[in-house]
Amino acid sequence: MLKNEIYKEAVNVAVIGATGYTGVELIRLLLSHPKFRIASLTADSRAGGDITDIFQHLNTYDLPKLVKVEDVNYNNIDAVFCCVPHGESQSIINNIPENVKICDLSTDFRFDDVELYEETYDRKHEAIELQKTAVYGLTEIYRDKIKKTRLVANPGCYPTSVLLPLMPLIKDGIIGQENIIVDSKSGVSGAGRTLKDSSLFTEVSDGFSAYAVTNHRHRPEIESQLVKCSNKNNIRVSFTPHLLPIKRGILSTIYIDIKDNYKLDDVKDCLKQKYDNEMFVSVLGNNIVPSTHDVRGSNFCNIGVFYDSHSNQTIIISVIDNLVKGASGQAIQNMNVMLGNEEKEGLMQGVIFP
Amino acid sequence: MLKNEIYKEAVNVAVIGATGYTGVELIRLLLSHPKFRIASLTADSRAGGDITDIFQHLNTYDLPKLVKVEDVNYNNIDAVFCCVPHGESQSIINNIPENVKICDLSTDFRFDDVELYEETYDRKHEAIELQKTAVYGLTEIYRDKIKKTRLVANPGCYPTSVLLPLMPLIKDGIIGQENIIVDSKSGVSGAGRTLKDSSLFTEVSDGFSAYAVTNHRHRPEIESQLVKCSNKNNIRVSFTPHLLPIKRGILSTIYIDIKDNYKLDDVKDCLKQKYDNEMFVSVLGNNIVPSTHDVRGSNFCNIGVFYDSHSNQTIIISVIDNLVKGASGQAIQNMNVMLGNEEKEGLMQGVIFP
Amino acid sequence: MLKNEIYKEAVNVAVIGATGYTGVELIRLLLSHPKFRIASLTADSRAGGDITDIFQHLNTYDLPKLVKVEDVNYNNIDAVFCCVPHGESQSIINNIPENVKICDLSTDFRFDDVELYEETYDRKHEAIELQKTAVYGLTEIYRDKIKKTRLVANPGCYPTSVLLPLMPLIKDGIIGQENIIVDSKSGVSGAGRTLKDSSLFTEVSDGFSAYAVTNHRHRPEIESQLVKCSNKNNIRVSFTPHLLPIKRGILSTIYIDIKDNYKLDDVKDCLKQKYDNEMFVSVLGNNIVPSTHDVRGSNFCNIGVFYDSHSNQTIIISVIDNLVKGASGQAIQNMNVMLGNEEKEGLMQGVIFP
Amino acid sequence: MLKNEIYKEAVNVAVIGATGYTGVELIRLLLSHPKFRIASLTADSRAGGDITDIFQHLNTYDLPKLVKVEDVNYNNIDAVFCCVPHGESQSIINNIPENVKICDLSTDFRFDDVELYEETYDRKHEAIELQKTAVYGLTEIYRDKIKKTRLVANPGCYPTSVLLPLMPLIKDGIIGQENIIVDSKSGVSGAGRTLKDSSLFTEVSDGFSAYAVTNHRHRPEIESQLVKCSNKNNIRVSFTPHLLPIKRGILSTIYIDIKDNYKLDDVKDCLKQKYDNEMFVSVLGNNIVPSTHDVRGSNFCNIGVFYDSHSNQTIIISVIDNLVKGASGQAIQNMNVMLGNEEKEGLMQGVIFP
Repeated sequence: MLKNEIYKEAVNVAVIGATGYTGVELIRLLLSHPKFRIASLTADSRAGGDITDIFQHLNTYDLPKLVKVEDVNYNNIDAVFCCVPHGESQSIINNIPENVKICDLSTDFRFDDVELYEETYDRKHEAIELQKTAVYGLTEIYRDKIKKTRLVANPGCYPTSVLLPLMPLIKDGIIGQENIIVDSKSGVSGAGRTLKDSSLFTEVSDGFSAYAVTNHRHRPEIESQLVKCSNKNNIRVSFTPHLLPIKRGILSTIYIDIKDNYKLDDVKDCLKQKYDNEMFVSVLGNNIVPSTHDVRGSNFCNIGVFYDSHSNQTIIISVIDNLVKGASGQAIQNMNVMLGNEEKEGLMQGVIFP
Repeated sequence: MLKNEIYKEAVNVAVIGATGYTGVELIRLLLSHPKFRIASLTADSRAGGDITDIFQHLNTYDLPKLVKVEDVNYNNIDAVFCCVPHGESQSIINNIPENVKICDLSTDFRFDDVELYEETYDRKHEAIELQKTAVYGLTEIYRDKIKKTRLVANPGCYPTSVLLPLMPLIKDGIIGQENIIVDSKSGVSGAGRTLKDSSLFTEVSDGFSAYAVTNHRHRPEIESQLVKCSNKNNIRVSFTPHLLPIKRGILSTIYIDIKDNYKLDDVKDCLKQKYDNEMFVSVLGNNIVPSTHDVRGSNFCNIGVFYDSHSNQTIIISVIDNLVKGASGQAIQNMNVMLGNEEKEGLMQGVIFP
Repeated sequence: MLKNEIYKEAVNVAVIGATGYTGVELIRLLLSHPKFRIASLTADSRAGGDITDIFQHLNTYDLPKLVKVEDVNYNNIDAVFCCVPHGESQSIINNIPENVKICDLSTDFRFDDVELYEETYDRKHEAIELQKTAVYGLTEIYRDKIKKTRLVANPGCYPTSVLLPLMPLIKDGIIGQENIIVDSKSGVSGAGRTLKDSSLFTEVSDGFSAYAVTNHRHRPEIESQLVKCSNKNNIRVSFTPHLLPIKRGILSTIYIDIKDNYKLDDVKDCLKQKYDNEMFVSVLGNNIVPSTHDVRGSNFCNIGVFYDSHSNQTIIISVIDNLVKGASGQAIQNMNVMLGNEEKEGLMQGVIFP
Repeated sequence: MLKNEIYKEAVNVAVIGATGYTGVELIRLLLSHPKFRIASLTADSRAGGDITDIFQHLNTYDLPKLVKVEDVNYNNIDAVFCCVPHGESQSIINNIPENVKICDLSTDFRFDDVELYEETYDRKHEAIELQKTAVYGLTEIYRDKIKKTRLVANPGCYPTSVLLPLMPLIKDGIIGQENIIVDSKSGVSGAGRTLKDSSLFTEVSDGFSAYAVTNHRHRPEIESQLVKCSNKNNIRVSFTPHLLPIKRGILSTIYIDIKDNYKLDDVKDCLKQKYDNEMFVSVLGNNIVPSTHDVRGSNFCNIGVFYDSHSNQTIIISVIDNLVKGASGQAIQNMNVMLGNEEKEGLMQGVIFP
């Protein structure tokens, strides 16, 4: 059995909510991270048991027993990844000692605007003071702030795929803030491990549908970030998510209008300049079409830029693995930044293909 | 073994190009059609053999041997379905006796404008006189013309999914001819049975990508029909196809602008009025999101209409089975109309779910 | 909307438990059956609603509202298909009027030996008198008895795939009753529509496992039928089921020993003689390997027989669609027999390929 | 772009035949291996191009251009992985300088018995002298010999899944050499990247079949190894492979007879003793059923042992990822052993789940 203790000098990490898909993905990535040691795993409904009772694929590793959230001993913990559903993070994180670094994977701290959070999620914000200290963890955009914060609000999976290409273009004023149409398609793991008819193999496999048309909660998250990086106070995005019969992967097809005084090359140049020195974000060459196959299991985001002269339409296509760059991978990337590790440490697993 | 001869009083049908996916799908549908008898099957490269050498699932039926196209004896044939690749239909159909009804599933006769065909497919049209007699086989739109023609050009799969919702709206002037964005997703059978890396299970399964971005050949087909039903001479559509890891099914998400003097209800009313008495096209109720699961194996087209007040965007989502309403099913529907059969005959197989 | 009433002269049918997968599959098949009219659909937890609230793919049809089991008006019912979970059928069927024909798809009436039922399912049998009248509905084997009974116990999906090839061989004494190894693989719909982790798309797709190794409840069902057709009182089968990442389909690989005085040809001859005049069961030609692809959506069972001279092992491979021949299709086949319809009526839908 | 040169002190590796699935899987694993540097990649038909022209998922890495096999400069090469089809390895490896370590992934050197190779593959062996030096690379079994050899014949995927559980049991005489039935199921990547109908998404997805019944070439490979570890000269295995609609993964269900003087616990004890200190092979606890999900993307082999007292049948189920432990992962494991690296180096990627 593989000994967790080989990492004795490492940062001690707790994963709160370890038995959801972002939790087990964190465990996968942490287990090959040279600086992190998994010191605590929580799962209230399974406290006292082993995570291998649920996930046999971890049977080779020597992992701590599952405990209740309230039973985590923070004396031994340097960093926390919080993977509980939205609405549950705020009170949990309120109770974590000041010296512990936190990356929260829920939506609970993603909105600077508390009212927008409360409206979108239809509940009171329970940690308004903490919210003021939180940094939105889109690493390539907010790296400098992430270095200095104690609390990162890890971005949503759809927003990550949309904001990485759009934020530099909005910020530089190359594209207009109108007529932004985002047609996104996500693998099923994005829906988590909750039991529902629409996640059954029999009802997903060999088919495709849209869902939450006109009212998905990731739309306000996307818009609030776009507004923040522009000097506009109003950007409206049309966002339509679809459910792909795949396990992992998001592809967003984004239709935008380039402003009159700009050309397609300006779009490409802007993105290339922004991301050329980034490890995890690639702007693909001309005519190379992004595919979720090319990022599966990895922290990469690939972006393709296309111009249809016939209809005068600019199209950006981006792909990520929703569980990695869209969740647990970006969380580790953020924690690496917060702790002064090399940003790519523990994230260099290759893409699984085929 | 099931005897084809039980259909002795039936129309004698030849399937030209029987061993592609549209060919075998026609065979599936014809075998349960009460008025048709499969009298001839062609496959040049397999002539002399049995279709069950290739497709075991037909082993229960007593089907004619495969022959070369040139060896079809048209004395016994009343109707032909032509399923050969584009560019091959024109000369074949030129040689079919006048009294035989023909439904061509290729693109060879889909363009009234021969020049547009030649430009799009980069080849000379070899049957210009025949073209003048061809009717575009979108049954619900051109039914009256189909009744009187001898040659139907069966629509492409993507165009069927796009034109059924858009043509009534364009014709009635409810939506503008600008900013029409079509984000389509198709199952792999749309690519046919050709051997290529990108159709391998290992390279399709568990992933998703766009393809032919900005230059798919179904775009001119869509535009030429939209122009025809409007009184405009220029409609530009942005069309982006994607490859779904499913066998059958197309879902098109269509972003349109309603004209100033119209409202969402006008969109719905227009489509409901058009399709309320149609067997195969349904406009779904409010908030019901179309899914390819709901049309699999059937000749149905389901259409949902949505309005996003936040971004002032109208969204239409349509689904079909690309091999049925998008190909072989619509072909039989057209042949039923040409021959005076009841339109739905042989097409009432239920949806396969799950 | 398609009118159910076109079948006015038809047999009035109730489907008890209409919202599980065998229930909706029955509806698919009944809707294209020329002699049956769906008069009543029950679903206790959804009583008062429409089945299209759950299954959009039925939106084209005019179906009765869902009612509670207790609210079925049997005055209007000629035949019942009972699709509730095992343990619930016995009391329901006890209360159905004598004149109504019944096909029960649960396990409740599959065991002549009540004690074996009680031991296998760990519950009291609640309809012992009815049990005596029940006929095991493997149509090709028990057709004559089915003609005369009022109550058919429709076979399990695995047993159907195993018994169709094995019963003739056991009966004729061609194979031994020892060393019968059945390695079966089933699609996920066999597990029904129950919500559980192991049926989630994310936990099924792109993987494969065995389950219920050494203790699956279909083993006693298989053995009791094999015993019945032999003159032995003890036949032991090793049965290992596996879960395939497919929607529909069972493939059983069966390892048997031919008795000393017989040869492979005797195996083939026995099965061919038994099934040559059967519509739904085919013994494939030499070297043709059965595939679930070849029976998808159909009531067919394909059987291949192989002999490995190297290891002196005889191998039989059989395939069915678990929802059709393994459940709802065979149920209709049995009801056709009970009612004196042509046995294949409503069951001639072609195989869905690809 | 990630610089290959960070590994400057590393062993220089050539991958011969880099554009098949085992080739790209080697590249994935090598890129995260701390001791190896990819110095040369060959692909005759693509020489002069970049591997990223074919496999976009490698676009982040700085990899050498593809060259022809004959153009590899062995002055810079310390180790070779040979991934060409069987029949091509022998002459290539004949021409590699003596100082270079070689792991051949084809079948060309897997048979000590040259005649058996020639009979099985129906071709002359072209490197009989080399054959005498080759060691069969089932690492856990032949580790000591692998340490000392220059040429490893990497095992086949099916044989790896079968031999790991069976060889210790045969060697210790716990199971008999008769009635060994192996029912194996493999993902599609096992068929390689060759274009053929039976590997198309449309013909694999949502279905399942057996293939090569009674005559698969991995059977002689399995038998020759079983004979070698026993003191018998004849062991007959019945081997039936099946094609799973998954990308990666093999599950072998193995039916064996325990010898009279042994019990189930002896089987378990034998395997536990053999593998308890092995990193990559796990004997699972009672009632835990192996699943390919639990080894996807990893070099692990999980083994479950079951006894069916009812039918007196012992069942062993083993799972591997056919591209990792069944090919490229085991190849790296072997090369680590040959070069004196820690055996697990570069192989600690976690399992991809979900």
